[in-house]
Amino acid sequence: METVERLISGAQELLWERGYVGTSPKAVQLVAGAGQGSMYHHFAGKAELAKVAIGRSAEEMRAAAEEQLGGAGTARERIAAYLGREREVLKGCQIGRLAADPEVVADPELRAPVAETFEWLRGRLTEVVAEGKQNGEFPETLDPERTAATIAAVLQGGYVLARAAGSPEPFNLAVQGLNDLLNPTT
Amino acid sequence: METVERLISGAQELLWERGYVGTSPKAVQLVAGAGQGSMYHHFAGKAELAKVAIGRSAEEMRAAAEEQLGGAGTARERIAAYLGREREVLKGCQIGRLAADPEVVADPELRAPVAETFEWLRGRLTEVVAEGKQNGEFPETLDPERTAATIAAVLQGGYVLARAAGSPEPFNLAVQGLNDLLNPTT
Repeated sequence: METVERLISGAQELLWERGYVGTSPKAVQLVAGAGQGSMYHHFAGKAELAKVAIGRSAEEMRAAAEEQLGGAGTARERIAAYLGREREVLKGCQIGRLAADPEVVADPELRAPVAETFEWLRGRLTEVVAEGKQNGEFPETLDPERTAATIAAVLQGGYVLARAAGSPEPFNLAVQGLNDLLNPTT
Repeated sequence: METVERLISGAQELLWERGYVGTSPKAVQLVAGAGQGSMYHHFAGKAELAKVAIGRSAEEMRAAAEEQLGGAGTARERIAAYLGREREVLKGCQIGRLAADPEVVADPELRAPVAETFEWLRGRLTEVVAEGKQNGEFPETLDPERTAATIAAVLQGGYVLARAAGSPEPFNLAVQGLNDLLNPTT
């Protein structure tokens, strides 16, 4: 792998694990096996490298979500597949994790890809719920935009509860509870 | 306020805003208006002060939740009041925020009060949902433990989405969506 790619994927890994505040340029260089000069040759500094790394993680998250949400099956089935797909629960969400970071939230350039990813996800879930409503899978009274936000929140909050507990159990319970509420007849 | 109290509440504030990794002993001393000697007179180090501060924040979070969950009204009404109470959404949850922190999650002594607080919250919500089921407010098929985890996750995930968006809107949508699912007849 080229140095620039190693720097980007090293930064992705550290941002996921330690956040922006907790990631030093030195640590990225160490993980990437790159010298200081090499890093500053490719990127103006930590913020610029982080921007590229966050963009890359955002792309990966979208592609992973689209695998289920744009896959085969009814709206209900696709949402269940999205909720139920295998996840590294105790690592948390590589994008959601950044919302806890004060410097990401305070910097419009760093926050933008985080904001856009969740906006896209909520929009995509809204479409799938609306489609399910149209096909009679969900009750007429269900508001797709609200339901989409609830689905996204259960996953993000599930990660928080799981990391707090040191176990994926609360994540699984929260997702099962949401499935029960979305499928009240089963 | 005594120095020791100023150190604790200063640490609470910084842990909420910047997390454990992002909080230096120097910053706590500055916020508390205390010297280095004074801080180390009261606490062995950052970890010990943080443990006390996290314990204090956990107590505050429990008391705030109990105000609605142990208040007057039916189970449904108490859950709705808990979900709908005023929150500093963009600040996030002072306890949930710590689950994103790698050093809190890695240290059993620092993680314990975070884990216990959410265990208590999920247990308390389980009781209220079970009570509502017994009184015919919720359907027989609802699993109280799962539903409780979903409720806690929606709030924690709502904070994540709101901070990502730089707006409380996704938090409010997620909570409204959960209310819709919990009250399908209204």
